[in-house]
Amino acid sequence: MQSTAAYQEHFSDYFVQQDFFRQPKNLYEPIGYILNLGGKRIRPILTLMAAEIFDTPLQKALPAAMAVEVFHNFSLVHDDIMDDAPLRRGKATVHEKWDLNTGILSGDAMLILAYQFFENYEPAVFKALAKLFSKTALEVCEGQQYDVDFENRDDVTIVEYLKMIEFKTAVLVAAALKMGAIIAETTTENANLIYDFGLNLGIAFQLQDDYLDCFGNPETFGKQVGGDIIENKKTYLYLKTVEFAKPAEREELLHLYSIQPQDNAEKIASVKEIFIQTGAATATQKAIEAFTLKSFETLEKMEISDEKKKALQTFGEALMNRSV
Amino acid sequence: MQSTAAYQEHFSDYFVQQDFFRQPKNLYEPIGYILNLGGKRIRPILTLMAAEIFDTPLQKALPAAMAVEVFHNFSLVHDDIMDDAPLRRGKATVHEKWDLNTGILSGDAMLILAYQFFENYEPAVFKALAKLFSKTALEVCEGQQYDVDFENRDDVTIVEYLKMIEFKTAVLVAAALKMGAIIAETTTENANLIYDFGLNLGIAFQLQDDYLDCFGNPETFGKQVGGDIIENKKTYLYLKTVEFAKPAEREELLHLYSIQPQDNAEKIASVKEIFIQTGAATATQKAIEAFTLKSFETLEKMEISDEKKKALQTFGEALMNRSV
Repeated sequence: MQSTAAYQEHFSDYFVQQDFFRQPKNLYEPIGYILNLGGKRIRPILTLMAAEIFDTPLQKALPAAMAVEVFHNFSLVHDDIMDDAPLRRGKATVHEKWDLNTGILSGDAMLILAYQFFENYEPAVFKALAKLFSKTALEVCEGQQYDVDFENRDDVTIVEYLKMIEFKTAVLVAAALKMGAIIAETTTENANLIYDFGLNLGIAFQLQDDYLDCFGNPETFGKQVGGDIIENKKTYLYLKTVEFAKPAEREELLHLYSIQPQDNAEKIASVKEIFIQTGAATATQKAIEAFTLKSFETLEKMEISDEKKKALQTFGEALMNRSV
Repeated sequence: MQSTAAYQEHFSDYFVQQDFFRQPKNLYEPIGYILNLGGKRIRPILTLMAAEIFDTPLQKALPAAMAVEVFHNFSLVHDDIMDDAPLRRGKATVHEKWDLNTGILSGDAMLILAYQFFENYEPAVFKALAKLFSKTALEVCEGQQYDVDFENRDDVTIVEYLKMIEFKTAVLVAAALKMGAIIAETTTENANLIYDFGLNLGIAFQLQDDYLDCFGNPETFGKQVGGDIIENKKTYLYLKTVEFAKPAEREELLHLYSIQPQDNAEKIASVKEIFIQTGAATATQKAIEAFTLKSFETLEKMEISDEKKKALQTFGEALMNRSV
């Protein structure tokens, strides 16, 4: 097993060999743009790691890793349109820098390009990868739709919320790992276990994202702390608060979630206080721990060396500590 | 070989067995809606026909036919957003009936669903179909981009225009036929020939669409006659006119293509007259004939019975006479 930085470099070396600057320019230039905004390449790295975990050279997994990264960026381009987001990784989003139609069409092309990277594999592996990819991609769309739907509902349950983040975020993490396992042609058992490892880690990661959006260190979190509160987002923290709150607390929270003050500092402070005093903040931390633990427990059942289990767990811990 | 109506019925029987009314409702309902607006199902029928041409039961080609139809409808949903079109087949477009985000996301899901239909085939066939499909889908995106680009250019050549309609329209017709050939596991030669048959027929069809948009019978054409002139679209007729026009005619055409009168009747009549008097109308008819002939000549080289060649030609003629 190698360091995260080493995996990132392997991926980067392969990435720069790809030619996304084809004709027509107005279709492909935005694709090159968004893919070159960077990011930590966590998903493709997972594909490379999983291949090595199951004793296959990571080089064999590079095209699948690329498919995962291109798909992830496709979803960012279309999600940014839907969320009307002006910025992505500190730069203008595709529909802002170009226009709506460019965002739609370049996104469509990226989804197709992602499938094409699987053509590097022989038919049986190609089919297994494309099948997992389609299932995952459809779930990501479903997750995005649930997220949109939840905005207009005030009866979202914790179970529904967990399903939404599972689909919107965790299934791609899980599938990225399973693709490495498929390429390595390991046992179905192992492939399913590494999927479950990724799924639970992905849910833990997203719950932690909710938590840090509220309680994170503004200097290290990367996004605006309190952003979810400003947008009245019904996160896990919010839903747990509604569940735990006494009538007066609940009323105050609903009031705070109905106002849009000029200065949000006071609103953020008040909501955070309710999140803490109802016990929702603690409950969220416990849920993060529980999903992380569930993820690590899956490793125990895998038929791989202890050293490799340790490597996966270390990566998971680093991810949860946001050092990758 | 069977009648077009018989193929339509086979496809329809398979179509109604598909369940597009899944959860989340807001994602899948628009998919069921657009797919149920109907249409002549020309593309999926071509897949079924091609399978039979190469001695394979059409039943085996039904999932691929479905993929082609779902993809075609995906492209309609996203194109309608880009064209800001309120109506499709006389009914509200998806982004009109729902909203922009629904149009984008349901379209994305349809593109993925199209790929999933190929999962019905064993790995080697699956890979061949998915590969052809990805190549075709990407070309359709490129064709759409060229179409958008051409709106803002006044130096589009005939060669560029033909490439645009080849990508935007003809490659899907060609691929639909080739998919039937792939499923039938005929020779590569035959598969490529039926692709070329479809490609040239598709180009002829689209050129005819340009022609009929201007000179068609308003009672049978289905779209508003003169629509392209109202929108100042640089069609084959227009480009040929620019090529053939004397300076005065050219100036008049450019003037007419710069105005947006309240009542378009006079503008349409004047433009039509220039199309005729420059010889562009006749040149367009000749181009339609030439591509149709080229399409039929391809049939001669195919290793199939004369009866089957005749059946394909008859279908092609019926398509060009717009009786299918």
